[in-house]
Parts: sequence; structure tokens; C-alpha cells
Amino acid sequence: MSDPRGPQPLAPRILAGDIRAASRLMRMIDDGSPGATPELRAIFPHTGQAYVIGITGSPGAGKSTLTDRLIAHYRKAGLSVGVIAVDPTSPFTGGAILGDRIRMQGHATDPKVFIRSLATRGNLGGLSRATGDCIRVMDAMGRQVILVETVGVGQDEIDIAGLAHTTVVVLVPGMGDDIQAIKAGILEVADVFAVNKADLDGADRVVRELNAMLELRHAIRAPPVGMEHDAHHQLTAAEKQERDDREWEPPIQKVIAAKDQKVDELVAAIQQHRDWLERTGNKAVREQSRAGTQFVALLRDRLLEAGLARLEREKGNLAEVSRRIAERSADPYQLADELAQQARSGR
Amino acid sequence: MSDPRGPQPLAPRILAGDIRAASRLMRMIDDGSPGATPELRAIFPHTGQAYVIGITGSPGAGKSTLTDRLIAHYRKAGLSVGVIAVDPTSPFTGGAILGDRIRMQGHATDPKVFIRSLATRGNLGGLSRATGDCIRVMDAMGRQVILVETVGVGQDEIDIAGLAHTTVVVLVPGMGDDIQAIKAGILEVADVFAVNKADLDGADRVVRELNAMLELRHAIRAPPVGMEHDAHHQLTAAEKQERDDREWEPPIQKVIAAKDQKVDELVAAIQQHRDWLERTGNKAVREQSRAGTQFVALLRDRLLEAGLARLEREKGNLAEVSRRIAERSADPYQLADELAQQARSGR
Repeated sequence: MSDPRGPQPLAPRILAGDIRAASRLMRMIDDGSPGATPELRAIFPHTGQAYVIGITGSPGAGKSTLTDRLIAHYRKAGLSVGVIAVDPTSPFTGGAILGDRIRMQGHATDPKVFIRSLATRGNLGGLSRATGDCIRVMDAMGRQVILVETVGVGQDEIDIAGLAHTTVVVLVPGMGDDIQAIKAGILEVADVFAVNKADLDGADRVVRELNAMLELRHAIRAPPVGMEHDAHHQLTAAEKQERDDREWEPPIQKVIAAKDQKVDELVAAIQQHRDWLERTGNKAVREQSRAGTQFVALLRDRLLEAGLARLEREKGNLAEVSRRIAERSADPYQLADELAQQARSGR
Repeated sequence: MSDPRGPQPLAPRILAGDIRAASRLMRMIDDGSPGATPELRAIFPHTGQAYVIGITGSPGAGKSTLTDRLIAHYRKAGLSVGVIAVDPTSPFTGGAILGDRIRMQGHATDPKVFIRSLATRGNLGGLSRATGDCIRVMDAMGRQVILVETVGVGQDEIDIAGLAHTTVVVLVPGMGDDIQAIKAGILEVADVFAVNKADLDGADRVVRELNAMLELRHAIRAPPVGMEHDAHHQLTAAEKQERDDREWEPPIQKVIAAKDQKVDELVAAIQQHRDWLERTGNKAVREQSRAGTQFVALLRDRLLEAGLARLEREKGNLAEVSRRIAERSADPYQLADELAQQARSGR
């Protein structure tokens, strides 16, 4: 990977579609290297062309297989594809499992399929910031569709889902009671539900439960302004149109990724959501929300770096401060408020 | 829940073990209410007595049932118990599913079992900070054992695992290929592995795979200083003792929580880890690391609040700034660096 000419500005090469330059910048992002920022600033004005699809859901749901099928579909349609497999595993394994698995499934020789795993070493957060930055790299390279696959269902994964135009939540039958908690957590971020392994017992039950949750959500949502006092009001065609433009009703699509069944239907459901975003003007709303999610993740990371640097300069390094807190000779709430006060006022 | 005398300082009541006061403060923490901070500062010097056990693992692993069994065990041993069920679900369900489920399983009338679900509304992080603060509330109340149950396996959950003295990672047979990714991610945080539903096919395979991963980790770990060049060096008893004091080898315990089988053995494995921490002096190391994890989570949240307040004052509110970023008329990297620079230098 080393370049005999020494470090070069990567941005122009990335904008020309150079895979090696993009790989290098993504590695720098994953490592938290400060050298990534000027490159990201240089490519930023050229981003915003790609369509970003998130694939998320519980472990064992078959997301990687489904991602593989979606790659094949979009390639057949002539589109270039980028895939980011977010894999918050330890440095121990290098976090390459997912990417390797997908890569082995037959896209290895296709230059129009670019797959990277993202692990993000270190324990100071940063995963959703790094994911957002890597999306921009693939976008700047000219990838037309970017698939972002996340393992696990946690707060960070929900943040990452906010980086996509369309988020596909993958469920499978027979995940036990915790499925309730998962479904509740992801209901808000799902634009499309995929019930994978739909040939297994219990698939219909998952569909029924999802439908019930969606109806419940529908029922408790506030009615439009001016209609609050008339629950039995019959919607006119114009009112119904207005509601449909405002609210997206996530479709629930059964699929059997391992047998390549119903994948076209799932792709159609994703396309419906995309059409809805564009037709209703919600695409701009979504883009703004994506930009905000990504900016907050970036700001959080940068502020924490700065705050820890200031802590070290004024109070001692983190290990030393942690020792004093553990011994109850320092007050963490006071320390944090003091540092935050300085960030707030600039004094 | 309203107090006719108006708001009272909660801290003295919490220190006296008052469940209603503790509930109220935990609700304030969950809601991100600024009024929580003075109460937390007041109880902080009185914390540090409880033993904190994390229960984490993939969805469907039976963590709630296992938590229920552990509660019963510690109650039988005469200890008071606090349980925090971390449940990053949406406001839609209120995140009470887990707590309710446990509560219904027979501890409802036992005042020495205090269970709270934690959902943490909002999308600016905060879950691991809130969990840390709630642990301190239960600690200050005098709860002797605190169980922290997390659903999902993501970066946030790994941070939360860092808040425990002993982290139990729960696995089950038959979770599919993603189990590899999960195991890799949690290997570093597990002090004890529980292979639940051990009467199912595949339990032995999970145990074997875990053993293989632990051996691999053992093999690639750097040898102690001075022994680097002698891979075949036969350890003396003293060297072996030194290594065992330094490195904890996570035991792997099969259990069938639903049938209440092997729970005593799992409790014994947790106790072994606790004894090891105390015998070797690693407890102080762990406490320092816990304090650091918690402080970083607190600092990150406080700095972000401050940074966003400053952003709004100087650049416009987040929605407006996000719109400009989405239109590529503002540069997020420059904005974040500017705000961070101010936090760093205080100017």
C-alpha cells in the first residue's frame, strides 16, 4: 500500500474514481487520522449524488446475504455500487469479517463493486462519524448506490440509519421475545421492512406483528392541525393526498435472500420510497436531516478530542483524573461542567 | 408522583434508601433534565460500595430470564439488588418492555429488588452517561448488587459494559453467522461467558468456538517484558502466578436460565472474577477504568450541549445549519473544527 512518491493529496484521485486512493482515505478515517480532514473538505463540495440505502437489523437476520443480492441487482441495472459494512468489532479481528464474507461471494473481480468494512478502533465513539465520512468518499468516487450494512441494534446503529436515504430493517422469524424491544427501537427508522427467511415458520407472525405496530403508531399520531376535534372526519381525496405526502407508510416485504427469492420486490419497495421522497419534496427534508445527523456526530467527536486535550493540559491526563474520580477526590460533574462552560462561552 | 410540598432535594432521601426519590432522580436522568446534576453531585461522594454486574449479549439470548434468576439468587443470599434494564427503544413504546417483563416475574412485592428501565429519549447519545448515573443512584441507595442488562450489541453497549465490575456475555446456540462478528466484538469486554439454552443443539459448538477464540487471543498476546525472545520458555510457578494475576481468563459456563439450571455455577464464576479483582489489586484498576468510561460519556454529552448552544448563538440553529450543509453552502468540517478550537483553547 505504500506510495514511493510519499503522501499525495488523495482528493483529486478519489474524484477521478481511484479505488486505491479511496481505500487509503477510508483507512485514515477508520484510524481517526487527522490527515483525513483536509481530504474530506476537498471532496465535500462534490458529494451529494449517491443514493444511500441502509441495511440494518438484529444479528442472524441474514443482512450480508441480502446485501449481496442487492449488489447483484443494482449491478444488473448498470449502476456502480459501494458497500460499507459497519462492524464494531475489536482490533483483535480487525473487523474484516463481514466485508470478507461479502467479497468472497462473487463480486471480487467487479471494479464497479467497492466494499469496505469499517471497524473504528478506540472507545471514544466515532463510529457514526466515520461511517458518514466513508459514505462521502464513495459518493465522491461516483458510486451511484451506496449500501450501508450495520450489525447489531443499538443507539449507534440507529444514528447510522439516519445517514441513509432509505433504511431497510431486516427481521427474521423466531428471534425470541427481545424482538419486541428491537422492533420498537427500529420502528422509527424503518422506511422498508424486509422479513427475511420468509420460508421459515413464524414469518407470517412477524408480518402481523409489524402491521399491528404500524397501525398502533398510525392511531396515536396527532391528526393534522384543524382536524384535532373530529376523530370521525372522513378524509377528502385532497386531505388523503396531503397525508400521504407527509407520512410514509413503511411497506413490509417478505424475502428469502439465500434463495434469491422476492429480491426484486424488495428492490421495488426501496424504489417506491425513493420515488416518494422525490415526488413529495421530502428528499430535501431527508438530506437536511442526514446532514444534521452527520454534523452532530462530527461535532461530538471533535469537541470531545478538544475537551480531553484541554483536560490534560489543565487537570492531568485522563488516567490520572479517572483515578482521582474513582477515589472520590475529584468531582466528575464539576469537571465536565467546567470544561463545557468554557466550550459554551469561549472563555 | 407529584409532591404537594414542591420539589425537594432528593439526595438525602436517596441516601436514606427512599425508592420514590431514587425513581424520580432516575427519571430526570433519563429525560436529560438539568436538575439531575446537583443531586448527582450530592450523592457522588457516597457511591462506590455496590458491586456492578453487566449482562449483555445478542437479542434473543434470554438475558431477561437470566437476570431474573440472578436476582433470585442474590436475594436468597440476603443482598439487596438493583436492576437497570437499558432499552434504547423509541418514545413510542416508552422503553418499559424489559423492566415490565422482569417486574412481572415475581419480584414485584420485594422492596429489596428495585428495577428500572432506561430508554433515553433523544438522538444525541447519552445512553451510557445515563446508565452510569443511574448506577450511582442505586449505589447511593445502598443496593449491594446492581445488575445492568443491555439489549443489542453495538458500540454503545460495549461502552456500557465498561461500567461494570464483571461483565457477563450471554450467547445461545444457533444465532447464525453473525455470531462470529458478535463474539469478536464482545471478546474484549467479557469477564464471564454464559452459554444459555444449553439444552439446545449446538451449545457445545458455541463453547468450542469460544475456547478457540480465547486460545487464539492468548497466543497472539505479547509475552511479558524480558521473555519476548523465548517462545518456548517454560513458565516457573512465580511467572505463572504473575501472569494469572495480570490476565483474567474468562470462564465459559453453560446455563439453562428458563429451567433454573446451572445458575449457581454461573454465580460462582462471577464470584471467582470478583475474588480475582480483589486478590490481585485489579479492582482498583477496574474502578479507575469505570470512572474514566463514565467521565468520558459525561464530558461528551456536556460538550455537545455546549457546542450546539454556541453554534445556535453564532451560526444559526441546527436545522438551519444542516440545511446549509445539505446545500453545500456550509462546510461541516470547518464549522466543527472552529467550535472545537474554541473548546480547546478557551478563546
